Amino acid sequence: MLTGIQIVLAGGDARQLEVIGRLTELDASVTISGFDRLDTSFPGVTKAEWTPEVLQNADALLLPAVGTDDEGTISAVFTDRELKLTDAHVAAMPKTCKIYCGMAKPYLRKLCEKHRVELIELFERDDVAIYNSIPTAEGAVMMAIQNTDITIHGSVCMVLGLGRTGLTLARTLQGLGAKVKAGVRREDSFARAFEMGFEPFYMPDLARQSGNIDLLFNTIPTMIVTAQVIAQLPLRACIIDLASKPGGTDFRFAEKRGIKAILAPGLPGIVAPKTAGRIIANSLTQIILEDKGQRGSAP
Amino acid sequence: MLTGIQIVLAGGDARQLEVIGRLTELDASVTISGFDRLDTSFPGVTKAEWTPEVLQNADALLLPAVGTDDEGTISAVFTDRELKLTDAHVAAMPKTCKIYCGMAKPYLRKLCEKHRVELIELFERDDVAIYNSIPTAEGAVMMAIQNTDITIHGSVCMVLGLGRTGLTLARTLQGLGAKVKAGVRREDSFARAFEMGFEPFYMPDLARQSGNIDLLFNTIPTMIVTAQVIAQLPLRACIIDLASKPGGTDFRFAEKRGIKAILAPGLPGIVAPKTAGRIIANSLTQIILEDKGQRGSAP
Repeated sequence: MLTGIQIVLAGGDARQLEVIGRLTELDASVTISGFDRLDTSFPGVTKAEWTPEVLQNADALLLPAVGTDDEGTISAVFTDRELKLTDAHVAAMPKTCKIYCGMAKPYLRKLCEKHRVELIELFERDDVAIYNSIPTAEGAVMMAIQNTDITIHGSVCMVLGLGRTGLTLARTLQGLGAKVKAGVRREDSFARAFEMGFEPFYMPDLARQSGNIDLLFNTIPTMIVTAQVIAQLPLRACIIDLASKPGGTDFRFAEKRGIKAILAPGLPGIVAPKTAGRIIANSLTQIILEDKGQRGSAP
Repeated sequence: MLTGIQIVLAGGDARQLEVIGRLTELDASVTISGFDRLDTSFPGVTKAEWTPEVLQNADALLLPAVGTDDEGTISAVFTDRELKLTDAHVAAMPKTCKIYCGMAKPYLRKLCEKHRVELIELFERDDVAIYNSIPTAEGAVMMAIQNTDITIHGSVCMVLGLGRTGLTLARTLQGLGAKVKAGVRREDSFARAFEMGFEPFYMPDLARQSGNIDLLFNTIPTMIVTAQVIAQLPLRACIIDLASKPGGTDFRFAEKRGIKAILAPGLPGIVAPKTAGRIIANSLTQIILEDKGQRGSAP
């Protein structure tokens, strides 16, 4: 239980509703800012203006997936007002209060460093990244079905990067009946790909391996699907890039060659906001409970 | 090879292009009607007006998935003209010529009976229905991802009917990590569902089993998801009805209760026209080859 814990939520989207629900179930004291257009009422939850005072007794401040932009603006779909995280807000927080978000831009990082406030980027955590890989993989599957005229079953899919997202995606595609080629860097990833029945290859071989594939899924956030690789792809191929913006694909060259290429970051919040919200809620709860010496569970 | 075999295609959609490609590969003599707006050129294929004469030497006439409507109109996306299958057309056919389509309405059946022409409904064949169940299952998965705010992974899915489509769909959902409940009529289906790790139940139990599910997929083409069943569903549930029109769901009552219910027949042609075309091409080819005493293969 989170009885007595003061949690402030500032801004966010449908995912936050799931978080609010979970936190109140666990008896936390929840204050929300940037939800004035929200119709749903949460019993026991306080709606407040986004002033520094609201943070005075907070144990935790939860920001949206992308904490703030580079000017400190907090995205908030349930209000028309602008929410900004300023010096004054962070200065008003108790020194023990932690700031949570999905991932942080330099503005937020610097602000936290300056005020010596602990910043926790939930999406950086391995467990959260693995839980999030499930809606990401389903979103990628949806996009693959929408953007090809063949079934995934029987197609040749290439997955670049067998990390937390790539592994889930490769397994999901295999489960649907695709032949999966996995581009890896490390020898242990090669071995794991082999064990799981994928067809592994090392990244330097990428261009040579790209000749006869239907779908290319990239999870690596550096320029990896270069013009040289795209030149080898068959024209029917479709590239779905799941890496954070700007992705790892030469989109300009893909367009020039007439190959469909889609940048699709942030799929969990789009295709499964409820599940994505549960993942955030659970991770947040787990960290707070761990601070209190207790243990959480799966979302 | 289909050397010397005269095949006429009348009307249809993108699936037909795959059929034309395959037939010409196998050296059939192909004539197409209702493709005047088609840009793709197929070497060796004759474009012809839709007159009875075009059928005079035909060995096979391929109509679209839904052969004709109840007035004899052949749906044809690649022309603005109306194509009609008339008495005169069928009368002009050699008696050995067979008519192929996906499924036939009474108009087409009666016309074939009257002229003693053999009618082959490809989608009725078990092998074709099983091949088509693959794009159907992927289309259902796409719709489930689009129409819920949770992942399929971890959800409770109910599949009604464990026939050719239901079995594929149940296995696909299980592969994505859903818990699958399967509504069956027969004891052997119950046993198969158990063997595959689904949670089987008998249809008379349906209402009682519907209390805590996220997705309900129906494959049975009779009224089965009745008001009584819908009354038991949680409000978050989403019904995806894959049975032929008008489906097996009381859509009026679902709307009244505020439960999302979608009729989605004919998914293969929508989500994977190329694969769906290959399935038709392969089955058609196989039947013609079998008539010649040879054997086909998987699409």
